[in-house]
Amino acid sequence: MLPVSRLSIIGLGLLGSSVARAVRAHMPGVTITGHDANPAHRETARAIQLCDDVTDTAGSAVIDAELVILCVPVGAMGDVAAEIAPDLPHGVIISDVGSSKASILAALEAALPGHHVIPAHPVAGTEQSGPEAGFSSLFHNRWCILTPPEGADAGKVAQLSAFWERLGANIEIMDATHHDLVLAITSHLPHLIAYTIVGTASDLETVTQSEVIKYSAGGFRDFTRIAASDPTMWRDVFLSNKDAVLEMLQRFTEDLTGLQKAIRLGDGERLFEHFTRTRAIRRGIIEQGQDDARPDFGRGER
Amino acid sequence: MLPVSRLSIIGLGLLGSSVARAVRAHMPGVTITGHDANPAHRETARAIQLCDDVTDTAGSAVIDAELVILCVPVGAMGDVAAEIAPDLPHGVIISDVGSSKASILAALEAALPGHHVIPAHPVAGTEQSGPEAGFSSLFHNRWCILTPPEGADAGKVAQLSAFWERLGANIEIMDATHHDLVLAITSHLPHLIAYTIVGTASDLETVTQSEVIKYSAGGFRDFTRIAASDPTMWRDVFLSNKDAVLEMLQRFTEDLTGLQKAIRLGDGERLFEHFTRTRAIRRGIIEQGQDDARPDFGRGER
Repeated sequence: MLPVSRLSIIGLGLLGSSVARAVRAHMPGVTITGHDANPAHRETARAIQLCDDVTDTAGSAVIDAELVILCVPVGAMGDVAAEIAPDLPHGVIISDVGSSKASILAALEAALPGHHVIPAHPVAGTEQSGPEAGFSSLFHNRWCILTPPEGADAGKVAQLSAFWERLGANIEIMDATHHDLVLAITSHLPHLIAYTIVGTASDLETVTQSEVIKYSAGGFRDFTRIAASDPTMWRDVFLSNKDAVLEMLQRFTEDLTGLQKAIRLGDGERLFEHFTRTRAIRRGIIEQGQDDARPDFGRGER
Repeated sequence: MLPVSRLSIIGLGLLGSSVARAVRAHMPGVTITGHDANPAHRETARAIQLCDDVTDTAGSAVIDAELVILCVPVGAMGDVAAEIAPDLPHGVIISDVGSSKASILAALEAALPGHHVIPAHPVAGTEQSGPEAGFSSLFHNRWCILTPPEGADAGKVAQLSAFWERLGANIEIMDATHHDLVLAITSHLPHLIAYTIVGTASDLETVTQSEVIKYSAGGFRDFTRIAASDPTMWRDVFLSNKDAVLEMLQRFTEDLTGLQKAIRLGDGERLFEHFTRTRAIRRGIIEQGQDDARPDFGRGER
């Protein structure tokens, strides 16, 4: 049995179009109606037949949905929810794929009183954007975190879990605030740091941009991939998860200052000790299938 | 014509064993003699027939070499040079693959007066270590930076350039001090930051290590790959390129503080502007073939 038979996807970028493709691949019986605020994206989505129907307004995409997934930037969630509110059918589940959860939960509950709001975050993505960037295996063996509010309908939570499991994801349920703390360190801070160092490198006077590009294989190029992610999405993440990001940033800065001091003092022992213990986490990530075990991510192989 | 016919490789880890494999692949006529201070590595190198001969002492590996490449950690260069000095034949080129150059140039010139010292740095590598981690295509389309001292023999520099070109590398010649500044931003600082954030993540009390591992696909896992690099090598890099690393770190910290302030003030415009301009460097890196153009480095594809 299908977890849902009529799905509505609002926002057809990397995530929204990946959900559509994954549903086609794993639940071909599901009817998908999509909408994107950008007319060019709607046109592309129609041209590549991403959905059964792509509507010109968000409201008309949700009228008979059992599950609505909002795949728009975090900062747009509240407005989109308000826009679709009059057209939502009774009993529908409203979920999303946003990277911070407490602010989204608050925005959706405020805009949609009396509806089944169950925020979700599939921890997956690439640096690319738009309806053509998505792919059906994006969620395979990735974690999808559900952050239902207190008192959420258990049946609806189970239904949403089953939906994501069918797309290949593993489910974890946690409190929205804890989610935001966990993701601040595993995703938001890494992006902030990557955006920072790429900016630092482009502003140097003593090293040219051409040199930075030429010699990027020494490590820098990895950061440029992350720093090529969607600017609107990431602006909203930092604005919406401010406290947790600033908390993690504070700790990072303390640790960086410690290593800076070790370098300044020539304290090789301290550096060696630090560089040795960071290997264990990498092993755990490989063992649990959360990264490619091939050296250098298998980069360059075809 | 072969650029050299008798090569000696001291240190048979990732880099040394990659040089051996690349020479086998591209210049099968060259005789390779190798040595590693670690008896287990020598045994492995013999078992996999990495070289024509693996000697038990460094000195006996160099007695008839035309080119000696030191592939040992930066901090060991001076000692190894002193060890082989008595056995070096007249006219031999002494080079290396170390990641910082001014300190190596000084150490090698001090230990080997009257010899042709031409330091080199192939900007390539993976997070793995040891004689079995190397592979022959590591230097394909990567840059190899030569930092000959003033007054270096032009013929010897041309010979070393030709050697690296045969292994697939592009050659750049620059001053050792400028090299160290360039690599501080494109390689050393990225590694320091990656080591730092992975350490920060493992020290948290509010987020468990198991959570960090599970949700690492949000960006963190990329940093763990870099932070799994060889601790001895990296300790030596930071100790030997202290000034340039501290200079770049200072700039990075200023920029990070600026973005931190933008987050604290909720200045979305500033964040968006910053996140937009970092995309250009990524495009340059892809266009110049210095990274895999596939989304997510092609990770997960096989």
